[in-house]
Amino acid sequence: MSILEHAEPRSTRERLKATLRRHAEALSPRVLRRTLTELQAVIEASVSEVEGGRQAEGVMRWYAQASPAQRQDMWLLMSEQFTADPEQVKRAQAQYAAAVGTPDEAAAEVLFRRATVSPRRRLLQRFSAAPGGIRFLVDMRAEMQPQLKSDRRLRALDVEMEYMFSTWFDVAFLDLRRISWDSPASLVEKLIKYEAVHDIRSWADVKNRLDSDRRCYGFFHPSLPDEPLIFVEVALMDSMASSITPLLDEGAAPSDLAKATTAIFYSISNTQTGLRGVSFGDSLIKRVVETLKAEFPRLKTFATLSPIPGLRAWMQKAAPAKLLEALDNPLELGPKSPVRTALLGWAAQYLGKETNDGKPLDAVARFHLGNGARVERLNWAGDPSPKGLKQSYGLMVNYLYDLRRLDKHRTMLAQGQIPISGDIEDLYF
Amino acid sequence: MSILEHAEPRSTRERLKATLRRHAEALSPRVLRRTLTELQAVIEASVSEVEGGRQAEGVMRWYAQASPAQRQDMWLLMSEQFTADPEQVKRAQAQYAAAVGTPDEAAAEVLFRRATVSPRRRLLQRFSAAPGGIRFLVDMRAEMQPQLKSDRRLRALDVEMEYMFSTWFDVAFLDLRRISWDSPASLVEKLIKYEAVHDIRSWADVKNRLDSDRRCYGFFHPSLPDEPLIFVEVALMDSMASSITPLLDEGAAPSDLAKATTAIFYSISNTQTGLRGVSFGDSLIKRVVETLKAEFPRLKTFATLSPIPGLRAWMQKAAPAKLLEALDNPLELGPKSPVRTALLGWAAQYLGKETNDGKPLDAVARFHLGNGARVERLNWAGDPSPKGLKQSYGLMVNYLYDLRRLDKHRTMLAQGQIPISGDIEDLYF
Amino acid sequence: MSILEHAEPRSTRERLKATLRRHAEALSPRVLRRTLTELQAVIEASVSEVEGGRQAEGVMRWYAQASPAQRQDMWLLMSEQFTADPEQVKRAQAQYAAAVGTPDEAAAEVLFRRATVSPRRRLLQRFSAAPGGIRFLVDMRAEMQPQLKSDRRLRALDVEMEYMFSTWFDVAFLDLRRISWDSPASLVEKLIKYEAVHDIRSWADVKNRLDSDRRCYGFFHPSLPDEPLIFVEVALMDSMASSITPLLDEGAAPSDLAKATTAIFYSISNTQTGLRGVSFGDSLIKRVVETLKAEFPRLKTFATLSPIPGLRAWMQKAAPAKLLEALDNPLELGPKSPVRTALLGWAAQYLGKETNDGKPLDAVARFHLGNGARVERLNWAGDPSPKGLKQSYGLMVNYLYDLRRLDKHRTMLAQGQIPISGDIEDLYF
Amino acid sequence: MSILEHAEPRSTRERLKATLRRHAEALSPRVLRRTLTELQAVIEASVSEVEGGRQAEGVMRWYAQASPAQRQDMWLLMSEQFTADPEQVKRAQAQYAAAVGTPDEAAAEVLFRRATVSPRRRLLQRFSAAPGGIRFLVDMRAEMQPQLKSDRRLRALDVEMEYMFSTWFDVAFLDLRRISWDSPASLVEKLIKYEAVHDIRSWADVKNRLDSDRRCYGFFHPSLPDEPLIFVEVALMDSMASSITPLLDEGAAPSDLAKATTAIFYSISNTQTGLRGVSFGDSLIKRVVETLKAEFPRLKTFATLSPIPGLRAWMQKAAPAKLLEALDNPLELGPKSPVRTALLGWAAQYLGKETNDGKPLDAVARFHLGNGARVERLNWAGDPSPKGLKQSYGLMVNYLYDLRRLDKHRTMLAQGQIPISGDIEDLYF
Repeated sequence: MSILEHAEPRSTRERLKATLRRHAEALSPRVLRRTLTELQAVIEASVSEVEGGRQAEGVMRWYAQASPAQRQDMWLLMSEQFTADPEQVKRAQAQYAAAVGTPDEAAAEVLFRRATVSPRRRLLQRFSAAPGGIRFLVDMRAEMQPQLKSDRRLRALDVEMEYMFSTWFDVAFLDLRRISWDSPASLVEKLIKYEAVHDIRSWADVKNRLDSDRRCYGFFHPSLPDEPLIFVEVALMDSMASSITPLLDEGAAPSDLAKATTAIFYSISNTQTGLRGVSFGDSLIKRVVETLKAEFPRLKTFATLSPIPGLRAWMQKAAPAKLLEALDNPLELGPKSPVRTALLGWAAQYLGKETNDGKPLDAVARFHLGNGARVERLNWAGDPSPKGLKQSYGLMVNYLYDLRRLDKHRTMLAQGQIPISGDIEDLYF
Repeated sequence: MSILEHAEPRSTRERLKATLRRHAEALSPRVLRRTLTELQAVIEASVSEVEGGRQAEGVMRWYAQASPAQRQDMWLLMSEQFTADPEQVKRAQAQYAAAVGTPDEAAAEVLFRRATVSPRRRLLQRFSAAPGGIRFLVDMRAEMQPQLKSDRRLRALDVEMEYMFSTWFDVAFLDLRRISWDSPASLVEKLIKYEAVHDIRSWADVKNRLDSDRRCYGFFHPSLPDEPLIFVEVALMDSMASSITPLLDEGAAPSDLAKATTAIFYSISNTQTGLRGVSFGDSLIKRVVETLKAEFPRLKTFATLSPIPGLRAWMQKAAPAKLLEALDNPLELGPKSPVRTALLGWAAQYLGKETNDGKPLDAVARFHLGNGARVERLNWAGDPSPKGLKQSYGLMVNYLYDLRRLDKHRTMLAQGQIPISGDIEDLYF
Repeated sequence: MSILEHAEPRSTRERLKATLRRHAEALSPRVLRRTLTELQAVIEASVSEVEGGRQAEGVMRWYAQASPAQRQDMWLLMSEQFTADPEQVKRAQAQYAAAVGTPDEAAAEVLFRRATVSPRRRLLQRFSAAPGGIRFLVDMRAEMQPQLKSDRRLRALDVEMEYMFSTWFDVAFLDLRRISWDSPASLVEKLIKYEAVHDIRSWADVKNRLDSDRRCYGFFHPSLPDEPLIFVEVALMDSMASSITPLLDEGAAPSDLAKATTAIFYSISNTQTGLRGVSFGDSLIKRVVETLKAEFPRLKTFATLSPIPGLRAWMQKAAPAKLLEALDNPLELGPKSPVRTALLGWAAQYLGKETNDGKPLDAVARFHLGNGARVERLNWAGDPSPKGLKQSYGLMVNYLYDLRRLDKHRTMLAQGQIPISGDIEDLYF
Repeated sequence: MSILEHAEPRSTRERLKATLRRHAEALSPRVLRRTLTELQAVIEASVSEVEGGRQAEGVMRWYAQASPAQRQDMWLLMSEQFTADPEQVKRAQAQYAAAVGTPDEAAAEVLFRRATVSPRRRLLQRFSAAPGGIRFLVDMRAEMQPQLKSDRRLRALDVEMEYMFSTWFDVAFLDLRRISWDSPASLVEKLIKYEAVHDIRSWADVKNRLDSDRRCYGFFHPSLPDEPLIFVEVALMDSMASSITPLLDEGAAPSDLAKATTAIFYSISNTQTGLRGVSFGDSLIKRVVETLKAEFPRLKTFATLSPIPGLRAWMQKAAPAKLLEALDNPLELGPKSPVRTALLGWAAQYLGKETNDGKPLDAVARFHLGNGARVERLNWAGDPSPKGLKQSYGLMVNYLYDLRRLDKHRTMLAQGQIPISGDIEDLYF
């Protein structure tokens, strides 16, 4: 007997009435009841996994042709009508609390755990077992995201999905695969679609990013075989990149792999909104570093060339108005300009000191520093594109992954101190 | 921020002391503490998934060379020291109970759910992310099974593993693959090893079972790529098999596929003790039926030729001593022997009426009837091997999978009535 | 002992002198001699196949950096200095002629055959055995093609290569593979490069040609794994296409596969100049027809939509000047225009009656009619592009592959009669 | 226009009459004529390659059910009735001879070459293009082999097939693949079937030969995808093997790969009689050496442990009767026995000096020495099996492949001197 067999749907007439009473939904009460019945049939006790999956397929077909409002109603039903029975949870909790410290503790924990497994979870599992079911759930959650803020009731479903996804998409089940110019055209097209940091403008652009001196890796999952869940673009160079411009120059000759000492991670993009909260980035970077070291034993330096997305917005709150005015055309500032010096100082400050809730303020900094990297170098005019100027006055930053110090940096960060290089420290004013 | 991030290890000095006090374990208190520290380091908050995985690898290496008693201590620590904090659970439960029916219900459910996720779960996930981690966990659980009865304290860990496995090994993630004489020799060797119903005696035996008139299918999972989790052996015939003997006869010529109307499932074996409670059989049979129908549109009948493992043991309690005495050499009973008639009657009774807790008493019957099959026909001398005689006086049974009636049969069963054919009914005395 | 072992290089001092005397080559006599020595070392009797292959690799490296004139000298050496010994051939021929009709005939034939195998053949085989050797030979022959007309001496090498290629690239060794949008981007890029009938203008264009209502198949050979040797583009439609325009319209919605009754072969391109004389087209079309019929049993009609590349050139010789003048803007001619009628008449004449050496005059007609197709329908404004207007005043033609009549048509053609439809016949004036 | 198009069948009534006159064949003249017609239809000029292949399929079906005598008649027709026209050959030869040294030489060679291509070759190519055609031809030639001695007329067909096979099965088209315990069971079974040196007695035996300290490699061709054409078994050891016994001991523990310095090739078997004359062995050994060096850079010595199949037979002619008598039980001879010394001396003599037609007398010696190996060491009781005793009084020999001296050894051999080690030289009497 499986642990899951005890998770029965507990939706009562009262719960449904409450749902109906409190809100004006798109579906008529009659249709709402019928949809609920369909969903309940998916996890009906006397139904086998296989038949449950078939029932789920029916729901999926209905959903495919449903209107946005109808879909939202289904989410609501899934969120509100498939909770564990609070009464039963309460009883199991009391029994468990009473057993703590006694020889019956383990058995009581088992019973408590069973009582808390929601029928919603079983519902999600039945969907997952239908052909295309995982794809359906990931897409459905992506579609739900914009509604979450305005409709708190969906949060229970959202969290349940996040939990299931974080189990199903466990790193243990992901394949690291190289994406190259020999990959399917349909996959290369997805790079164009999903690239989130430096837009890919054309097939010539993406071909350049897959040239002999580049590497691109993605994580794939057996249930979404044609989709990279996340991918990273790497340039192999003989020194640490200071500007994105030559990397995106389609006409530039590929650099000599035999001389490569440095791997620059210059773009990393998540592709599935529906997998929000399931984090792949840290694992991806570390597995790619291992893969690159095996292929190119001469590589010594692993670093990023990263945007600073939050710099300008923060400056506009923190920096003096006079400085901000002087920053109209940052690309025209000469190397000795005091404005330039001031901007570099504020940027160093922003990356090296500003935190929120104990974590780096800048989103990209938060990610790489959280992985154990340190702030290494600021690059003037690293990204002179309109987007680069708008985000960070054209500045870019290198985060250095020093493999022997990842743990040390992580511990520093946990203690509230952002790890930075001497170069960054020198920029503080 | 992931839902999992809130699940912190809550093992307190008191809990550990209690563990130490109540039991004399194999490890010294000092070593026990160190092992606990190692395990806690796997899910340490400041540690990334990648480093957590690496830490888990260290534990796995320790385990590989540990003694049985030391291993049991580690299980105990994992079971007892990584529970969710009961106090926190209690508070969250109270808040949730108070919010039921209010607009805050969903948010309260989320918090409650987080509080109940045990650190043990995160521990298992970190192990799973290490290379070979899933294999390690499945093997470890297999090793634990014999201890579960005598040591109730391990039950919490066992159930947690069952839960994680039933998610990781969800049918959605399994590959149905045909196993044939063109499959790797190392895989064919595993059929020999794992076959649980009719022992495979030699390579000639297994080659016969993979001949042109046979099919063998297994479920595979990406984390255990070379292991069938379960496999089924099928014979394609022109009528319903009544004896296992010709099926296992290596010298028999393969039957003509063009005339096949009937698929006989004559053996189905689970291979991983560590996956106990995770059920694959129903899905396997139904996916195999679909696959066979696609390849052989002329197939009309899908049935098993199954042992009746519990018949003799039940008879020895239920049947008159005189009958039992007369059953010494069942193979010698002529077709008109009243003893034979009596035995068939008792067997029909056993399969068609005997239940335990609402489910068929016989384990194999329970499985197939639970899938929606019905008891179709009893076969005299169906298995004249010593094992067959010992289990069921040589009787075998066909369960029929009538695809249009699976649901109907399942519903009957849920109402306490075992579906049987007219032939079986006629045997009742 | 292999049949090949008797084929020794017979280049004598006299032959080389003659070569040197007759022509002023790019290499000095000294270098020419050295190059010859290198080539001879490849097939040196005491050298094994493996060492011969290694020696060939050395020649390939030299060639890679050689000038065009030096390369041409090497071709010349290969063509002139590696013939079978004419004296020995003569003797063997005489012995064979004497043995015809006697019991020794077979043995004499064997000896004669051995005497005629040129060392050049063995040279090519040794090159083929080197890594990348086949690729090298195919490219070398492609490079030679433009020189063949002006330098008759290369003809022996060219024919030897054609012979070896027709054996190595025997249809038995070719793989028919579908090329789709899921094929490697580098392969899809090759479609863009090699398409010879209707130029592919962009990635959007090629994506449209690989859409759900299209099929593209190519022949591949294990030695050139990333190159289609030939490929065909097919549209699945509900009637016979009359214009190329909608087929190349990237914005057009794909047609409904469930209604497809007709497969239109609208482009077929050879890719390797070096394989000239080795014909794949007939096999390709027939294997594609079989593949399509298996996938889409409802397909009834298999036809092409083809250009008429030689029409205008022929008209300019054959048609009255007045008609030619009236054909300045054929797209503007109304459906009832007598000029239009006249042009269609001349075109029908051209396709249905004009032959050269017993074969259809038009190159594309020659190919399809040679395969057993018939001329089915002329399409006004079928290709209104500048190229279409220039070749054939915008006319296109359908060749119909009626599978039950291929042999009949082929026999008709062998008897000098071009198979045409009634529609075409009606156009004759 | 392909070079092959000119090769027409030239079988005349006279030739067929001669065939009928000279021999009493199994087929009646009527059937013989019909079979000839069927064969001629395969290469009929107006027939495309595709239809020719289809016609060939018909012949293959007829052949499948034909009697041995009928098959032999078909071979005879293929051998005698599909020669090039001797008259045409004669004319072409005369024209070619006249053109030698003139600018027309190349063109004349081309015409001559065309005239000599026999219709038989085209016939074989058409068979090859049919599905399963290559398999058919290889099997047919294997079947013919026993008849070749008694029926000289078949020789022309046999040589033509050898020629075509040596082109089709060129090393350039072979795949070197490792065969392991993870290879298909059906393939491992073929090792059991084809092993020609040391019989494989059981599945345990073959599993031992595929253990972690062993390697097995075979050459495969795309047209016979499931058949190794030849395979070699290798043991990785820390010194040069002196006896086959421990290598075939299923109970022996695998040796430590980390300490392996020596690769011993202890068995090499051709599998296809039909490919006689097409040699793979030299390439196989050299490619395996490269593969092993890449996987195990510490390997320094590559040698065989080989039987001496012709020793006893040669001794019985060459050695004194007295010695032969004393060799009844060689295994019982002590290390200092003079008989043992004498036998080793004769064996050294046999391997190091005896040649036939300039090549080593012993068949295995001929193969390895021809590849550039040298005779390295004689091993007393290297193969104490009945077969070993019968062939060579239990002696085995190591041939050493010294990669830097293969060419030198080969040149020595070409000059009539067999390369041997000092150890062997010391054994000479």
